[in-house]
Amino acid sequence: MDHALPHSGHQEIGLLDGLATTRAIRRYTDAEVTDEQLNQVLFAASRAPSGSNRQLFRFIVLRDDDASKPARELLAQGARKIWGAKKTADKYDRTSSTESGALSPKARMAATMEHYVDNFAAAPVIILPCLIRHRDPTPTEGASVYPAVQNLLLAARAIGLGGALTSMHLPVEAELRELLGIPDEVLLAATMTLGQPQGSHGPVRRQPLSHFVFESTWGAQPAWVEDPPGTTFTQAGPPTTN
Amino acid sequence: MDHALPHSGHQEIGLLDGLATTRAIRRYTDAEVTDEQLNQVLFAASRAPSGSNRQLFRFIVLRDDDASKPARELLAQGARKIWGAKKTADKYDRTSSTESGALSPKARMAATMEHYVDNFAAAPVIILPCLIRHRDPTPTEGASVYPAVQNLLLAARAIGLGGALTSMHLPVEAELRELLGIPDEVLLAATMTLGQPQGSHGPVRRQPLSHFVFESTWGAQPAWVEDPPGTTFTQAGPPTTN
Repeated sequence: MDHALPHSGHQEIGLLDGLATTRAIRRYTDAEVTDEQLNQVLFAASRAPSGSNRQLFRFIVLRDDDASKPARELLAQGARKIWGAKKTADKYDRTSSTESGALSPKARMAATMEHYVDNFAAAPVIILPCLIRHRDPTPTEGASVYPAVQNLLLAARAIGLGGALTSMHLPVEAELRELLGIPDEVLLAATMTLGQPQGSHGPVRRQPLSHFVFESTWGAQPAWVEDPPGTTFTQAGPPTTN
Repeated sequence: MDHALPHSGHQEIGLLDGLATTRAIRRYTDAEVTDEQLNQVLFAASRAPSGSNRQLFRFIVLRDDDASKPARELLAQGARKIWGAKKTADKYDRTSSTESGALSPKARMAATMEHYVDNFAAAPVIILPCLIRHRDPTPTEGASVYPAVQNLLLAARAIGLGGALTSMHLPVEAELRELLGIPDEVLLAATMTLGQPQGSHGPVRRQPLSHFVFESTWGAQPAWVEDPPGTTFTQAGPPTTN
């Protein structure tokens, strides 16, 4: 296509396949994310819709350099606090391996999160998506920034990268805003990490589609809802099996 | 791929191309959106990330049937109110054709919006994405529903449909919630229309990428930011040329 983004020699994944196989990637290799890759994901992000097409989303990119070090270290503190609280609240700290010696889903997730948080300050790229507010906050203002965030994650998938969408800035937000000079009227919408995946993407699992879809009125399940053949499911929220 | 969604005989568009060419589609043919198509877009929507993978997004589907008529008519009222106010505020009502007789971008947008609003109640499908709140509202809660909304729009693009993301429910939200039995703790996140496009998708235009990207600190433009060759641009917000 004339209007395609520049490719990088990848066999490009199809759009539907990409949507069904983009999942949170929290372990990265040491490979640098290149200027070209950053341009690709940021370009895709900025193609997203926003209210009245105002395009008030912005992206602060923290590369792995000295200039970004203080912000990265603050965010790593935030990550430790959030994971620490979650570990206790969701009882991750009581996970153990199964009798066979294999890790349970919950123990695997705990190990992934420990690794993620321990290495947060060294993530290949950290991106802080923001929204410049043009009016007082509203409950639906996220419609003008999170579509762009999702485009960014999907574009990363397309070019062989992977990312995770987090709120690790929340415990350190005031200091981070001051450090980075983020104006008061700007919503700091998320903290994203990005890099070359260790391991691979794969089918995203969710609850059965019938959990999500109502017809004509709240709570009314339509007869036509059906997951694609072969879909496997997972529960909502943190794993419960220890 | 094993894990692909079922296809429909389309030559599937690539992921990056899809991200760069999914734009708001506001004119639809009379073609019905089939059960299979609805399942495809809703499945893709539900693969999106959400906070702690809680999967609290829900989708109320209003098909073009008697059961949905009262809700559709309410939403059409909302659409007329929103467009009426916008037309005045953004001076769409003073647009005129250019000397050559061709419509200006602003006049074209006004004509599209008039048509959209006049036909709102008859959109092939209207979808109301919602978020069940598990805690008090937060400014970042949209991270758990708008990625799913964007996935839905992208999946529509993939299977030859098109959609638009709006907030047409806002002026009639209280009545609509009562009519549809939407619980108080649920965020009604958007109003989406969906159908077979009249006309076609194409490259999405935005401001130059340098408007959106900062490095290391708010407002600092990195040297490496570059739009793909051949990119054409547009301003932010409603067109200004009459």
